[in-house]
Amino acid sequence: MTPERKARVAAWFAQLRDRLIEALETIEDAGSRPGATSARFDRRPWQRPGGGGGTMALLRGQVLEKAGVNVSTVEGEFSEAFRGQVPGADQDPRFWASGISVVVHPRSPHVPAAHMNTRMIVTTRGWFGGGADLTPVTVNATDTAAFHAALKAACDAHDPTYYPRFKAWCDGYFYLPHRGEARGVGGIFFDDLAGPDWDADFAFVRDVGTAFLEIYPRLIRRHMAKPWTEAERRAQLTKRGRYVEFNLLYDRGTRFGLMTGGNPEAVLMSLPPEAAWP
Amino acid sequence: MTPERKARVAAWFAQLRDRLIEALETIEDAGSRPGATSARFDRRPWQRPGGGGGTMALLRGQVLEKAGVNVSTVEGEFSEAFRGQVPGADQDPRFWASGISVVVHPRSPHVPAAHMNTRMIVTTRGWFGGGADLTPVTVNATDTAAFHAALKAACDAHDPTYYPRFKAWCDGYFYLPHRGEARGVGGIFFDDLAGPDWDADFAFVRDVGTAFLEIYPRLIRRHMAKPWTEAERRAQLTKRGRYVEFNLLYDRGTRFGLMTGGNPEAVLMSLPPEAAWP
Repeated sequence: MTPERKARVAAWFAQLRDRLIEALETIEDAGSRPGATSARFDRRPWQRPGGGGGTMALLRGQVLEKAGVNVSTVEGEFSEAFRGQVPGADQDPRFWASGISVVVHPRSPHVPAAHMNTRMIVTTRGWFGGGADLTPVTVNATDTAAFHAALKAACDAHDPTYYPRFKAWCDGYFYLPHRGEARGVGGIFFDDLAGPDWDADFAFVRDVGTAFLEIYPRLIRRHMAKPWTEAERRAQLTKRGRYVEFNLLYDRGTRFGLMTGGNPEAVLMSLPPEAAWP
Repeated sequence: MTPERKARVAAWFAQLRDRLIEALETIEDAGSRPGATSARFDRRPWQRPGGGGGTMALLRGQVLEKAGVNVSTVEGEFSEAFRGQVPGADQDPRFWASGISVVVHPRSPHVPAAHMNTRMIVTTRGWFGGGADLTPVTVNATDTAAFHAALKAACDAHDPTYYPRFKAWCDGYFYLPHRGEARGVGGIFFDDLAGPDWDADFAFVRDVGTAFLEIYPRLIRRHMAKPWTEAERRAQLTKRGRYVEFNLLYDRGTRFGLMTGGNPEAVLMSLPPEAAWP
Protein backbone atom coordinates (compact mmCIF):
# COMPACT_ATOMS: atom_id res chain seq x y z
CA MET A 1 0.00 0.00 0.00
CA THR A 2 1.44 3.38 -0.98
CA PRO A 3 2.03 6.01 1.70
CA GLU A 4 -0.27 8.29 -0.27
CA ARG A 5 -3.19 5.87 0.04
CA LYS A 6 -2.57 5.39 3.74
CA ALA A 7 -2.56 9.17 4.20
CA ARG A 8 -5.81 9.57 2.25
CA VAL A 9 -7.53 6.89 4.30
CA ALA A 10 -6.38 8.28 7.65
CA ALA A 11 -7.39 11.80 6.55
CA TRP A 12 -10.88 10.57 5.60
CA PHE A 13 -11.42 8.94 8.98
CA ALA A 14 -10.37 12.17 10.72
CA GLN A 15 -12.71 14.21 8.50
CA LEU A 16 -15.62 11.83 9.11
CA ARG A 17 -14.89 12.04 12.84
CA ASP A 18 -15.14 15.83 12.70
CA ARG A 19 -18.44 15.71 10.83
CA LEU A 20 -19.92 13.11 13.18
CA ILE A 21 -18.86 15.12 16.20
CA GLU A 22 -20.43 18.24 14.74
CA ALA A 23 -23.70 16.44 14.01
CA LEU A 24 -23.88 14.91 17.48
CA GLU A 25 -22.98 18.15 19.26
CA THR A 26 -25.70 19.94 17.30
CA ILE A 27 -28.15 17.35 18.62
CA GLU A 28 -26.95 18.05 22.16
CA ASP A 29 -27.57 21.76 21.57
CA ALA A 30 -31.10 21.01 20.39
CA GLY A 31 -31.80 18.77 23.36
CA SER A 32 -30.41 20.95 26.14
CA ARG A 33 -32.50 23.30 28.21
CA PRO A 34 -32.53 26.94 27.00
CA GLY A 35 -29.63 28.79 28.59
CA ALA A 36 -27.89 25.59 29.69
CA THR A 37 -24.40 24.82 28.44
CA SER A 38 -24.68 21.75 26.25
CA ALA A 39 -22.15 18.94 26.44
CA ARG A 40 -19.18 18.79 24.12
CA PHE A 41 -16.86 15.99 23.03
CA ASP A 42 -13.69 15.74 25.05
CA ARG A 43 -10.83 14.69 22.74
CA ARG A 44 -8.02 12.71 24.33
CA PRO A 45 -5.06 11.68 22.20
CA TRP A 46 -3.30 8.44 23.13
CA GLN A 47 -0.11 6.78 22.00
CA ARG A 48 0.33 3.09 21.36
CA PRO A 49 3.61 1.83 22.85
CA GLY A 50 4.34 -0.29 19.76
CA GLY A 51 3.75 2.58 17.29
CA GLY A 52 1.09 5.09 16.33
CA GLY A 53 -1.90 6.12 18.37
CA GLY A 54 -5.24 7.76 18.14
CA THR A 55 -7.74 10.18 19.54
CA MET A 56 -10.64 9.12 21.66
CA ALA A 57 -13.47 11.65 21.73
CA LEU A 58 -16.12 11.16 24.38
CA LEU A 59 -19.31 13.10 25.04
CA ARG A 60 -21.59 12.65 28.04
CA GLY A 61 -24.66 14.69 27.35
CA GLN A 62 -28.36 15.17 27.92
CA VAL A 63 -29.55 13.47 24.75
CA LEU A 64 -26.51 11.27 24.24
CA GLU A 65 -25.76 9.70 27.59
CA LYS A 66 -22.46 8.42 26.19
CA ALA A 67 -21.13 8.92 22.69
CA GLY A 68 -17.64 7.90 21.65
CA VAL A 69 -15.85 8.55 18.40
CA ASN A 70 -12.40 7.00 18.20
CA VAL A 71 -9.92 7.32 15.35
CA SER A 72 -6.60 5.54 15.36
CA THR A 73 -3.69 4.86 13.05
CA VAL A 74 -1.30 2.28 14.40
CA GLU A 75 1.56 0.19 13.13
CA GLY A 76 3.81 -2.48 14.48
CA GLU A 77 4.27 -6.22 14.43
CA PHE A 78 1.73 -8.86 15.34
CA SER A 79 2.73 -11.20 18.15
CA GLU A 80 3.49 -14.83 17.29
CA ALA A 81 0.03 -15.82 18.46
CA PHE A 82 -1.73 -13.48 16.02
CA ARG A 83 0.34 -14.02 12.90
CA GLY A 84 -1.52 -17.11 11.83
CA GLN A 85 -4.89 -15.44 12.34
CA VAL A 86 -4.40 -12.32 10.23
CA PRO A 87 -4.43 -12.52 6.41
CA GLY A 88 -0.99 -11.88 4.93
CA ALA A 89 0.78 -11.78 8.30
CA ASP A 90 2.13 -15.32 8.47
CA GLN A 91 5.35 -14.51 6.59
CA ASP A 92 5.82 -10.87 7.58
CA PRO A 93 4.29 -9.80 10.91
CA ARG A 94 4.34 -6.05 10.22
CA PHE A 95 0.99 -4.28 10.02
CA TRP A 96 -0.52 -0.85 9.59
CA ALA A 97 -4.14 -0.11 10.48
CA SER A 98 -6.31 2.97 10.48
CA GLY A 99 -9.95 3.23 11.41
CA ILE A 100 -12.86 5.05 12.93
CA SER A 101 -15.22 3.61 15.51
CA VAL A 102 -18.42 5.25 16.71
CA VAL A 103 -20.75 4.07 19.46
CA VAL A 104 -23.70 6.08 20.75
CA HIS A 105 -25.75 5.17 23.82
CA PRO A 106 -28.63 7.66 24.00
CA ARG A 107 -30.24 8.51 27.32
CA SER A 108 -33.79 7.99 26.07
CA PRO A 109 -35.00 4.41 25.75
CA HIS A 110 -36.91 5.59 22.67
CA VAL A 111 -33.73 6.48 20.77
CA PRO A 112 -31.86 3.48 19.37
CA ALA A 113 -28.19 2.96 20.18
CA ALA A 114 -25.91 2.70 17.17
CA HIS A 115 -22.46 1.60 16.16
CA MET A 116 -20.39 2.31 13.06
CA ASN A 117 -16.84 1.29 12.30
CA THR A 118 -14.71 1.36 9.16
CA ARG A 119 -11.04 0.53 8.87
CA MET A 120 -8.20 -0.28 6.50
CA ILE A 121 -5.66 -2.90 7.48
CA VAL A 122 -2.36 -3.45 5.68
CA THR A 123 -0.08 -6.47 6.07
CA THR A 124 1.57 -7.98 3.01
CA ARG A 125 -2.00 -7.50 1.78
CA GLY A 126 -4.39 -4.60 2.26
CA TRP A 127 -8.17 -4.57 2.80
CA PHE A 128 -11.12 -2.64 4.18
CA GLY A 129 -13.66 -3.72 6.75
CA GLY A 130 -16.43 -2.22 8.77
CA GLY A 131 -20.13 -1.92 9.24
CA ALA A 132 -22.96 -0.14 10.96
CA ASP A 133 -25.81 -1.49 13.05
CA LEU A 134 -28.70 -0.26 15.13
CA THR A 135 -29.73 -1.44 18.61
CA PRO A 136 -33.15 -0.19 19.72
CA VAL A 137 -34.69 -1.17 23.06
CA THR A 138 -37.98 -1.92 21.37
CA VAL A 139 -38.07 -2.42 17.64
CA ASN A 140 -39.55 0.43 15.60
CA ALA A 141 -40.22 -0.84 12.08
CA THR A 142 -39.97 2.64 10.53
CA ASP A 143 -36.53 3.25 12.05
CA THR A 144 -35.30 -0.18 11.05
CA ALA A 145 -36.47 0.33 7.47
CA ALA A 146 -34.92 3.80 7.21
CA PHE A 147 -31.58 2.65 8.63
CA HIS A 148 -31.38 -0.33 6.30
CA ALA A 149 -32.50 1.75 3.31
CA ALA A 150 -29.68 4.23 3.86
CA LEU A 151 -27.07 1.47 4.04
CA LYS A 152 -28.61 -0.36 1.08
CA ALA A 153 -28.37 2.79 -1.03
CA ALA A 154 -24.67 3.15 -0.13
CA CYS A 155 -24.10 -0.51 -1.04
CA ASP A 156 -26.16 -0.55 -4.24
CA ALA A 157 -24.22 2.40 -5.67
CA HIS A 158 -21.18 0.10 -5.75
CA ASP A 159 -22.26 -3.51 -6.14
CA PRO A 160 -25.76 -5.04 -6.09
CA THR A 161 -24.44 -8.05 -4.17
CA TYR A 162 -23.06 -5.96 -1.30
CA TYR A 163 -26.23 -5.22 0.65
CA PRO A 164 -27.68 -8.76 0.77
CA ARG A 165 -24.26 -10.23 1.60
CA PHE A 166 -23.28 -7.60 4.14
CA LYS A 167 -26.70 -7.56 5.79
CA ALA A 168 -26.57 -11.35 6.26
CA TRP A 169 -23.00 -11.05 7.58
CA CYS A 170 -24.18 -8.45 10.09
CA ASP A 171 -27.10 -10.61 11.25
CA GLY A 172 -24.73 -13.53 11.74
CA TYR A 173 -22.11 -11.47 13.52
CA PHE A 174 -24.18 -9.39 15.97
CA TYR A 175 -25.85 -12.41 17.53
CA LEU A 176 -25.74 -13.77 21.09
CA PRO A 177 -25.84 -17.57 20.72
CA HIS A 178 -26.14 -18.15 24.48
CA ARG A 179 -29.36 -16.10 24.49
CA GLY A 180 -30.58 -17.02 21.02
CA GLU A 181 -31.00 -13.26 20.49
CA ALA A 182 -29.80 -10.72 17.96
CA ARG A 183 -27.92 -7.75 19.45
CA GLY A 184 -30.18 -5.35 17.59
CA VAL A 185 -31.93 -4.95 14.25
CA GLY A 186 -28.77 -5.29 12.19
CA GLY A 187 -27.34 -3.22 9.40
CA ILE A 188 -24.27 -4.23 7.40
CA PHE A 189 -20.94 -5.85 8.24
CA PHE A 190 -18.06 -6.52 5.86
CA ASP A 191 -14.41 -7.51 6.05
CA ASP A 192 -11.57 -8.57 3.74
CA LEU A 193 -12.83 -6.11 1.11
CA ALA A 194 -10.03 -5.98 -1.45
CA GLY A 195 -11.39 -5.75 -4.97
CA PRO A 196 -9.42 -5.10 -8.16
CA ASP A 197 -10.01 -1.33 -7.88
CA TRP A 198 -8.73 0.10 -4.60
CA ASP A 199 -10.26 3.51 -5.30
CA ALA A 200 -13.69 1.92 -5.68
CA ASP A 201 -13.32 0.10 -2.36
CA PHE A 202 -12.26 3.31 -0.65
CA ALA A 203 -15.21 5.17 -2.18
CA PHE A 204 -17.57 2.49 -0.82
CA VAL A 205 -16.07 2.81 2.67
CA ARG A 206 -16.57 6.59 2.49
CA ASP A 207 -20.18 6.10 1.39
CA VAL A 208 -20.89 3.79 4.34
CA GLY A 209 -19.61 6.48 6.70
CA THR A 210 -21.60 9.19 4.97
CA ALA A 211 -24.78 7.10 4.98
CA PHE A 212 -24.47 6.57 8.73
CA LEU A 213 -23.81 10.28 9.23
CA GLU A 214 -26.99 11.10 7.32
CA ILE A 215 -29.40 8.58 8.78
CA TYR A 216 -28.52 8.11 12.43
CA PRO A 217 -28.89 11.73 13.57
CA ARG A 218 -32.32 11.75 11.88
CA LEU A 219 -33.38 8.73 13.95
CA ILE A 220 -32.17 10.42 17.12
CA ARG A 221 -34.12 13.60 16.35
CA ARG A 222 -37.23 11.59 15.56
CA HIS A 223 -37.53 10.31 19.16
CA MET A 224 -35.41 12.48 21.43
CA ALA A 225 -38.17 14.75 22.74
CA LYS A 226 -40.53 11.98 23.85
CA PRO A 227 -40.68 11.36 27.61
CA TRP A 228 -40.11 7.90 29.02
CA THR A 229 -41.13 5.87 32.05
CA GLU A 230 -38.98 4.21 34.68
CA ALA A 231 -40.03 0.81 33.28
CA GLU A 232 -38.81 1.88 29.83
CA ARG A 233 -35.51 2.97 31.35
CA ARG A 234 -35.18 -0.41 33.11
CA ALA A 235 -35.81 -2.17 29.81
CA GLN A 236 -33.08 -0.04 28.24
CA LEU A 237 -30.56 -0.91 30.97
CA THR A 238 -31.35 -4.61 30.51
CA LYS A 239 -30.93 -4.34 26.74
CA ARG A 240 -27.60 -2.63 27.40
CA GLY A 241 -26.59 -5.60 29.55
CA ARG A 242 -27.01 -7.76 26.44
CA TYR A 243 -24.85 -5.26 24.54
CA VAL A 244 -22.11 -5.68 27.16
CA GLU A 245 -22.40 -9.45 26.91
CA PHE A 246 -21.97 -9.35 23.15
CA ASN A 247 -19.03 -6.98 23.17
CA LEU A 248 -17.05 -8.78 25.88
CA LEU A 249 -17.93 -12.37 24.93
CA TYR A 250 -17.91 -12.23 21.15
CA ASP A 251 -16.83 -8.97 19.54
CA ARG A 252 -13.62 -9.61 17.63
CA GLY A 253 -12.54 -5.98 17.66
CA THR A 254 -12.89 -5.76 21.43
CA ARG A 255 -11.06 -8.99 22.13
CA PHE A 256 -8.43 -8.20 19.48
CA GLY A 257 -7.87 -4.73 20.92
CA LEU A 258 -7.51 -5.96 24.49
CA MET A 259 -5.31 -8.94 23.64
CA THR A 260 -2.95 -6.80 21.54
CA GLY A 261 -2.38 -4.28 24.31
CA GLY A 262 -4.69 -1.57 22.97
CA ASN A 263 -5.69 1.31 25.23
CA PRO A 264 -8.46 -0.33 27.31
CA GLU A 265 -10.34 2.94 27.71
CA ALA A 266 -10.48 3.35 23.93
CA VAL A 267 -11.27 -0.31 23.23
CA LEU A 268 -14.02 -0.38 25.86
CA MET A 269 -15.46 2.99 24.84
CA SER A 270 -18.24 0.92 23.28
CA LEU A 271 -19.59 -0.19 26.65
CA PRO A 272 -22.73 1.59 27.84
CA PRO A 273 -22.52 4.13 30.67
CA GLU A 274 -24.87 2.01 32.78
CA ALA A 275 -26.27 -1.48 32.34
CA ALA A 276 -28.34 -3.89 34.38
CA TRP A 277 -28.87 -7.61 34.83
CA PRO A 278 -32.24 -7.69 36.56
CA MET B 1 -16.39 -42.63 40.82
CA THR B 2 -18.99 -44.65 42.72
CA PRO B 3 -22.64 -43.58 42.65
CA GLU B 4 -22.46 -43.35 46.43
CA ARG B 5 -19.68 -40.72 46.27
CA LYS B 6 -21.54 -38.74 43.65
CA ALA B 7 -24.65 -38.79 45.83
CA ARG B 8 -22.70 -37.65 48.90
CA VAL B 9 -21.12 -34.75 46.98
CA ALA B 10 -24.40 -33.57 45.46
CA ALA B 11 -26.10 -33.83 48.87
CA TRP B 12 -23.36 -31.72 50.48
CA PHE B 13 -23.73 -28.97 47.90
CA ALA B 14 -27.50 -28.91 48.50
CA GLN B 15 -26.98 -28.78 52.26
CA LEU B 16 -24.42 -25.97 51.96
CA ARG B 17 -26.85 -24.11 49.69
CA ASP B 18 -29.56 -24.35 52.37
CA ARG B 19 -27.24 -23.07 55.09
CA LEU B 20 -25.97 -20.19 52.93
CA ILE B 21 -29.51 -19.20 52.03
CA GLU B 22 -30.51 -19.25 55.69
CA ALA B 23 -27.52 -17.07 56.68
CA LEU B 24 -28.16 -14.56 53.91
CA GLU B 25 -31.91 -14.36 54.56
CA THR B 26 -31.18 -13.75 58.25
CA ILE B 27 -29.02 -10.80 57.19
CA GLU B 28 -31.90 -9.49 55.08
CA ASP B 29 -34.16 -9.72 58.12
CA ALA B 30 -31.64 -7.76 60.19
CA GLY B 31 -31.28 -5.08 57.52
CA SER B 32 -34.93 -4.54 56.67
CA ARG B 33 -37.08 -1.83 58.22
CA PRO B 34 -39.14 -2.93 61.23
CA GLY B 35 -42.47 -4.24 60.02
CA ALA B 36 -41.31 -4.54 56.42
CA THR B 37 -41.34 -7.91 54.70
CA SER B 38 -37.74 -8.87 54.04
CA ALA B 39 -36.65 -10.40 50.77
CA ARG B 40 -36.41 -14.15 50.30
CA PHE B 41 -34.56 -16.35 47.84
CA ASP B 42 -36.64 -17.41 44.87
CA ARG B 43 -35.68 -20.98 43.89
CA ARG B 44 -36.08 -21.89 40.24
CA PRO B 45 -35.26 -25.42 39.12
CA TRP B 46 -33.97 -25.86 35.58
CA GLN B 47 -33.28 -28.87 33.39
CA ARG B 48 -30.29 -29.28 31.10
CA PRO B 49 -31.37 -30.68 27.72
CA GLY B 50 -28.37 -33.05 27.64
CA GLY B 51 -29.00 -34.46 31.14
CA GLY B 52 -29.43 -33.30 34.71
CA GLY B 53 -30.17 -29.81 35.89
CA GLY B 54 -30.04 -27.57 38.88
CA THR B 55 -31.70 -25.00 41.02
CA MET B 56 -30.95 -21.32 40.78
CA ALA B 57 -31.85 -19.36 43.90
CA LEU B 58 -31.91 -15.60 43.59
CA LEU B 59 -32.55 -12.93 46.21
CA ARG B 60 -32.98 -9.22 45.53
CA GLY B 61 -32.99 -7.52 48.88
CA GLN B 62 -32.29 -4.41 50.88
CA VAL B 63 -28.84 -5.43 52.12
CA LEU B 64 -28.04 -7.85 49.34
CA GLU B 65 -28.94 -6.10 46.11
CA LYS B 66 -28.45 -9.40 44.26
CA ALA B 67 -27.44 -12.73 45.74
CA GLY B 68 -27.41 -15.94 43.77
CA VAL B 69 -26.83 -19.48 44.97
CA ASN B 70 -26.85 -22.06 42.23
CA VAL B 71 -26.48 -25.82 42.60
CA SER B 72 -26.38 -28.16 39.66
CA THR B 73 -25.71 -31.79 38.89
CA VAL B 74 -25.37 -32.49 35.20
CA GLU B 75 -24.15 -35.28 33.00
CA GLY B 76 -23.71 -35.87 29.32
CA GLU B 77 -21.02 -35.92 26.68
CA PHE B 78 -18.54 -33.18 25.85
CA SER B 79 -18.65 -31.90 22.30
CA GLU B 80 -15.73 -32.71 20.00
CA ALA B 81 -14.30 -29.25 20.61
CA PHE B 82 -14.12 -29.71 24.38
CA ARG B 83 -12.81 -33.25 24.60
CA GLY B 84 -9.19 -32.27 24.19
CA GLN B 85 -9.50 -29.53 26.82
CA VAL B 86 -10.91 -31.57 29.70
CA PRO B 87 -8.71 -34.01 31.63
CA GLY B 88 -9.67 -37.60 30.98
CA ALA B 89 -12.22 -36.76 28.28
CA ASP B 90 -10.12 -37.37 25.16
CA GLN B 91 -10.93 -41.10 24.98
CA ASP B 92 -14.39 -41.12 26.53
CA PRO B 93 -16.42 -37.90 26.27
CA ARG B 94 -18.92 -38.73 29.03
CA PHE B 95 -18.91 -36.51 32.10
CA TRP B 96 -20.72 -35.94 35.36
CA ALA B 97 -20.41 -32.70 37.31
CA SER B 98 -21.92 -31.32 40.46
CA GLY B 99 -21.27 -27.99 42.10
CA ILE B 100 -22.37 -24.97 44.03
CA SER B 101 -21.79 -21.38 42.98
CA VAL B 102 -22.48 -18.33 45.13
CA VAL B 103 -22.19 -14.68 44.15
CA VAL B 104 -23.29 -11.79 46.35
CA HIS B 105 -23.49 -8.17 45.20
CA PRO B 106 -24.40 -6.09 48.28
CA ARG B 107 -26.22 -2.79 47.90
CA SER B 108 -23.83 -0.88 50.15
CA PRO B 109 -20.49 0.16 48.65
CA HIS B 110 -19.01 -0.52 52.11
CA VAL B 111 -19.86 -4.22 51.99
CA PRO B 112 -17.54 -6.29 49.78
CA ALA B 113 -18.96 -8.49 47.05
CA ALA B 114 -17.99 -12.15 47.26
CA HIS B 115 -17.91 -15.32 45.24
CA MET B 116 -17.55 -18.96 46.24
CA ASN B 117 -17.70 -22.04 44.09
CA THR B 118 -16.87 -25.70 44.66
CA ARG B 119 -17.46 -28.58 42.32
CA MET B 120 -16.63 -32.19 41.52
CA ILE B 121 -16.12 -33.26 37.94
CA VAL B 122 -15.96 -36.84 36.76
CA THR B 123 -14.74 -38.04 33.37
CA THR B 124 -12.57 -41.15 33.15
CA ARG B 125 -10.94 -39.30 36.06
CA GLY B 126 -12.50 -37.42 38.97
CA TRP B 127 -11.42 -34.25 40.73
CA PHE B 128 -12.52 -31.29 42.82
CA GLY B 129 -12.12 -27.61 42.11
CA GLY B 130 -13.30 -24.33 43.51
CA GLY B 131 -12.39 -21.26 45.44
CA ALA B 132 -13.62 -18.16 47.18
CA ASP B 133 -12.66 -14.55 46.72
CA LEU B 134 -13.63 -11.10 47.95
CA THR B 135 -14.20 -7.95 45.88
CA PRO B 136 -14.46 -4.76 47.93
CA VAL B 137 -14.96 -1.34 46.32
CA THR B 138 -12.23 0.11 48.52
CA VAL B 139 -9.83 -2.21 50.26
CA ASN B 140 -10.34 -2.66 54.00
CA ALA B 141 -7.25 -4.35 55.45
CA THR B 142 -9.14 -5.85 58.39
CA ASP B 143 -11.71 -7.49 56.10
CA THR B 144 -9.03 -8.77 53.77
CA ALA B 145 -7.06 -10.27 56.64
CA ALA B 146 -10.13 -11.90 58.19
CA PHE B 147 -11.27 -13.40 54.90
CA HIS B 148 -7.84 -14.81 54.11
CA ALA B 149 -7.38 -16.10 57.67
CA ALA B 150 -10.62 -18.08 57.46
CA LEU B 151 -9.60 -19.69 54.17
CA LYS B 152 -6.06 -20.29 55.40
CA ALA B 153 -7.38 -22.14 58.46
CA ALA B 154 -9.52 -24.36 56.20
CA CYS B 155 -6.48 -25.06 54.02
CA ASP B 156 -3.97 -25.59 56.83
CA ALA B 157 -6.15 -28.25 58.46
CA HIS B 158 -5.51 -30.39 55.37
CA ASP B 159 -2.16 -29.51 53.84
CA PRO B 160 0.28 -26.71 54.70
CA THR B 161 1.04 -26.18 51.01
CA TYR B 162 -2.61 -25.54 50.07
CA TYR B 163 -3.03 -21.95 51.21
CA PRO B 164 0.13 -20.46 49.64
CA ARG B 165 -0.46 -22.37 46.40
CA PHE B 166 -4.19 -21.70 46.19
CA LYS B 167 -3.83 -18.03 47.18
CA ALA B 168 -1.27 -17.49 44.41
CA TRP B 169 -3.51 -19.37 41.96
CA CYS B 170 -6.39 -17.06 42.93
CA ASP B 171 -4.30 -13.92 42.48
CA GLY B 172 -3.22 -15.12 39.05
CA TYR B 173 -6.71 -16.14 38.02
CA PHE B 174 -8.83 -13.16 39.14
CA TYR B 175 -6.77 -10.63 37.25
CA LEU B 176 -7.68 -8.27 34.40
CA PRO B 177 -4.57 -8.09 32.20
CA HIS B 178 -6.05 -5.37 29.95
CA ARG B 179 -6.40 -3.11 33.00
CA GLY B 180 -3.39 -4.36 34.93
CA GLU B 181 -5.79 -4.72 37.88
CA ALA B 182 -6.80 -7.51 40.24
CA ARG B 183 -10.56 -8.22 40.35
CA GLY B 184 -10.53 -7.93 44.13
CA VAL B 185 -8.39 -8.82 47.13
CA GLY B 186 -8.21 -12.51 46.33
CA GLY B 187 -8.82 -15.60 48.37
CA ILE B 188 -8.12 -19.12 47.15
CA PHE B 189 -8.58 -20.95 43.86
CA PHE B 190 -7.89 -24.61 43.14
CA ASP B 191 -8.59 -27.14 40.44
CA ASP B 192 -7.62 -30.70 39.47
CA LEU B 193 -7.60 -31.68 43.15
CA ALA B 194 -7.37 -35.47 43.11
CA GLY B 195 -5.14 -36.74 45.89
CA PRO B 196 -4.67 -40.37 46.96
CA ASP B 197 -7.45 -40.07 49.56
CA TRP B 198 -10.78 -39.04 48.03
CA ASP B 199 -12.41 -38.64 51.44
CA ALA B 200 -9.70 -36.16 52.48
CA ASP B 201 -10.25 -34.11 49.30
CA PHE B 202 -14.00 -34.10 49.88
CA ALA B 203 -13.48 -33.03 53.52
CA PHE B 204 -11.30 -30.13 52.32
CA VAL B 205 -13.97 -29.03 49.85
CA ARG B 206 -16.55 -29.09 52.65
CA ASP B 207 -14.25 -27.04 54.88
CA VAL B 208 -13.83 -24.38 52.18
CA GLY B 209 -17.60 -24.04 51.95
CA THR B 210 -17.98 -23.91 55.71
CA ALA B 211 -15.21 -21.31 56.07
CA PHE B 212 -16.94 -19.06 53.53
CA LEU B 213 -20.26 -19.56 55.31
CA GLU B 214 -18.67 -18.48 58.60
CA ILE B 215 -16.64 -15.48 57.48
CA TYR B 216 -18.57 -13.74 54.73
CA PRO B 217 -21.80 -13.03 56.67
CA ARG B 218 -19.62 -11.55 59.43
CA LEU B 219 -18.05 -9.13 56.94
CA ILE B 220 -21.48 -8.13 55.67
CA ARG B 221 -22.74 -7.42 59.19
CA ARG B 222 -19.63 -5.40 59.99
CA HIS B 223 -20.48 -2.73 57.39
CA MET B 224 -24.14 -3.06 56.42
CA ALA B 225 -25.52 -0.33 58.68
CA LYS B 226 -23.13 2.42 57.56
CA PRO B 227 -24.64 5.04 55.20
CA TRP B 228 -22.99 5.83 51.88
CA THR B 229 -22.70 8.73 49.50
CA GLU B 230 -23.66 8.97 45.85
CA ALA B 231 -19.94 9.15 44.98
CA GLU B 232 -19.34 5.88 46.86
CA ARG B 233 -22.22 4.29 44.97
CA ARG B 234 -20.75 5.49 41.66
CA ALA B 235 -17.40 3.99 42.64
CA GLN B 236 -19.17 0.71 43.39
CA LEU B 237 -20.93 0.66 39.99
CA THR B 238 -17.59 1.28 38.27
CA LYS B 239 -15.92 -1.51 40.25
CA ARG B 240 -18.82 -3.74 39.21
CA GLY B 241 -18.09 -2.86 35.59
CA ARG B 242 -14.64 -4.37 36.09
CA TYR B 243 -16.32 -7.45 37.57
CA VAL B 244 -18.43 -7.79 34.42
CA GLU B 245 -15.32 -7.39 32.26
CA PHE B 246 -13.55 -10.18 34.12
CA ASN B 247 -16.45 -12.61 34.06
CA LEU B 248 -17.28 -12.18 30.37
CA LEU B 249 -13.73 -11.80 29.03
CA TYR B 250 -11.80 -14.29 31.15
CA ASP B 251 -13.81 -16.44 33.54
CA ARG B 252 -13.50 -20.04 32.43
CA GLY B 253 -16.66 -21.16 34.21
CA THR B 254 -18.72 -18.48 32.50
CA ARG B 255 -17.32 -19.12 29.05
CA PHE B 256 -17.49 -22.90 29.58
CA GLY B 257 -21.10 -22.66 30.75
CA LEU B 258 -22.22 -20.52 27.82
CA MET B 259 -20.33 -22.48 25.17
CA THR B 260 -21.70 -25.83 26.42
CA GLY B 261 -25.29 -24.69 26.26
CA GLY B 262 -25.78 -24.02 29.96
CA ASN B 263 -28.79 -22.07 31.14
CA PRO B 264 -27.66 -18.47 30.45
CA GLU B 265 -29.63 -17.07 33.38
CA ALA B 266 -27.86 -19.46 35.76
CA VAL B 267 -24.42 -19.01 34.18
CA LEU B 268 -24.74 -15.21 34.20
CA MET B 269 -26.22 -15.08 37.69
CA SER B 270 -22.77 -13.80 38.71
CA LEU B 271 -23.24 -10.50 36.89
CA PRO B 272 -24.06 -7.51 39.10
CA PRO B 273 -27.58 -6.06 39.12
CA GLU B 274 -26.24 -2.73 37.86
CA ALA B 275 -22.83 -1.65 36.60
CA ALA B 276 -21.32 1.46 35.04
CA TRP B 277 -18.57 2.46 32.67
CA PRO B 278 -18.20 6.15 33.47
